[in-house]
Amino acid sequence: MRRRTLLTSAIAGIAATACSKPDETGADCESSGRAFRWKMVTSWPTNFPGFGSAANLLAETIERNSNGRVRIRIFAADELVPAFEVFDAVSSGTAELGHSAPVYWKGKIPSAQFFSGIPFGMLPMEFNAWLYHGGGQELWSEAYAPFGVMPFTAGNTGPQMGGWFRREIESIDDLAGLKMRMPGLGAEVLQRAGATPVNISGAELFTALQTGAIDATEWAGPYNDQAFGLHEIAPYYYYPGWHEPSGTLECLVNAAAFAQLPEDLRAIVRSACRETNEVMLAEFTARNQVALRQLVDEHGVELRRFPDDVMRRLKKLTAEVIAEARDHDALTDRVAESYSGFQRQSLEWRRVSTDAFLDARSD
Amino acid sequence: MRRRTLLTSAIAGIAATACSKPDETGADCESSGRAFRWKMVTSWPTNFPGFGSAANLLAETIERNSNGRVRIRIFAADELVPAFEVFDAVSSGTAELGHSAPVYWKGKIPSAQFFSGIPFGMLPMEFNAWLYHGGGQELWSEAYAPFGVMPFTAGNTGPQMGGWFRREIESIDDLAGLKMRMPGLGAEVLQRAGATPVNISGAELFTALQTGAIDATEWAGPYNDQAFGLHEIAPYYYYPGWHEPSGTLECLVNAAAFAQLPEDLRAIVRSACRETNEVMLAEFTARNQVALRQLVDEHGVELRRFPDDVMRRLKKLTAEVIAEARDHDALTDRVAESYSGFQRQSLEWRRVSTDAFLDARSD
Repeated sequence: MRRRTLLTSAIAGIAATACSKPDETGADCESSGRAFRWKMVTSWPTNFPGFGSAANLLAETIERNSNGRVRIRIFAADELVPAFEVFDAVSSGTAELGHSAPVYWKGKIPSAQFFSGIPFGMLPMEFNAWLYHGGGQELWSEAYAPFGVMPFTAGNTGPQMGGWFRREIESIDDLAGLKMRMPGLGAEVLQRAGATPVNISGAELFTALQTGAIDATEWAGPYNDQAFGLHEIAPYYYYPGWHEPSGTLECLVNAAAFAQLPEDLRAIVRSACRETNEVMLAEFTARNQVALRQLVDEHGVELRRFPDDVMRRLKKLTAEVIAEARDHDALTDRVAESYSGFQRQSLEWRRVSTDAFLDARSD
Repeated sequence: MRRRTLLTSAIAGIAATACSKPDETGADCESSGRAFRWKMVTSWPTNFPGFGSAANLLAETIERNSNGRVRIRIFAADELVPAFEVFDAVSSGTAELGHSAPVYWKGKIPSAQFFSGIPFGMLPMEFNAWLYHGGGQELWSEAYAPFGVMPFTAGNTGPQMGGWFRREIESIDDLAGLKMRMPGLGAEVLQRAGATPVNISGAELFTALQTGAIDATEWAGPYNDQAFGLHEIAPYYYYPGWHEPSGTLECLVNAAAFAQLPEDLRAIVRSACRETNEVMLAEFTARNQVALRQLVDEHGVELRRFPDDVMRRLKKLTAEVIAEARDHDALTDRVAESYSGFQRQSLEWRRVSTDAFLDARSD
């Protein structure tokens, strides 16, 4: 059980009432016992740094900013429901909140994958721009609405790594027959390239790789991958993470539960999601650069770049996979249109800003 | 006067009490009239989009998330104090909050410039990583503490443009005698290159450029520059923004006023700053790409890239300027050490993640 006791000092002794300091807060809560006691189910292993820390930060922020009027009990994967049943648990009201990744729901909601980050898609700064100011959030809300679930961004890994391999990838032929853990559109691309993609949860990765149930796996990046100990089994660590340039995590909120909150608590939940999104990306960026060096210098990991022709082939297959996904689902078609249109539009600005700046900086 | 009336429906009719719906919020506030009425002074012109919108969002978020227990009156530059006296106003308690840019206080706090973004320095994702998880925030807080001011990030322009010029820059010699608006370390670099840097506030830019008081100016990027109408005067728009790859804005908080807030309201203020930081960067990224196209296609602006040898020269001068700044001020030396160390450490991770991904995406 990973129940954190947050705000221990502030909340200690307050069983039924919500606010602790009527003299300071301007909120006399003695008369009320209306704290909301919510559950948050997650897709992450017990005490898992990174993804799990983001879930903790999210819950902690909501509790603290609401002065304990919303109290959240966090469940790791398999404590209340398995990793891949988080969406259903929030939809049914088993839990009011979920912390997970949109890509996991592609079987139920094909368009969901676009909100995780797609192969050869947008980087975090571009993705957030699309989400907050390019129509992305509205489409995402529409996609989950039939299930009574509201989605908010609540974490980003930044660009990921290409994954851990037990043998080298020197040409596209080396992907033939390769059993590799990968979810989402990337998995379909791998399949077309002759590999056998498998989707298993984070907690199962190490054992699956160790027993040979899979030959390769991606997860998130140096910091979080190191926490799983994947370098102890697979010697080759490939880049770039072509399949997930912006690994967005989500806070799922049961819409009926959300509607019961007063306006200020709804605002506090929404704001906490955005804050978590900002802080997790910063944390991963800072820790990835440290972990990368440790993996190479201390653990002897072999950094490998995917050959250019492998990247070109996967990019071509990605275009095919996306085109087919658009043909099969009307909402996916609209989401892809919006996503790709925004990405195209961003290229000229990127060229004159970030790209030109980096040229000058590295000169 | 730019006093926004936020949350009109929620707060209407509540003069002395703070919370409106004791039956829903679990907070019975009838007994208290302890709303905090704060002033926020800003360095931005009246009704200014972008920078001004970020200040509005920040105030709105604090008001909404506190259910009106903190109410904020916003002042544009010159309404209460001039643009460049925002820091002093917050330090003295004339206003509890300020929304401005760290670079403006270099005369008083030389190290402040590093928290705005420095020439050839870190991009937003790298900068936020340093700030939240690399020791940056602690140093920033230390720098402002002697003045009774607490700093938080509260907005980011993303990478900026190099600026607007009335004549072309074909070599470093073309900078000789050029009167250009630029604040911070960039200004010192320009000076060494033979130019005459001038620091004037945003509201004065158009007129200064029109009357020939300055020959060139930078501001923020296509979206916000367009709002000033700079393209109506200067035909050449240069890139990259070598001087400010991450234009960070700040929320300044009077430390004594902050200490009077109960814990939940302190947390709400801090969180609102981070949310504003996230959302403003997304807004600028989205709107910059649209504005860039409009400037070129509809207004006939001439996009120009600074010649490579100009960039190399400015980069060399930047190293000299930073070295001298470190010699002159002990805290600047520590801040620069931390900043540059983090930037160096980030390079390998950037190479295998963002850079390698962009190579594959554009191939």
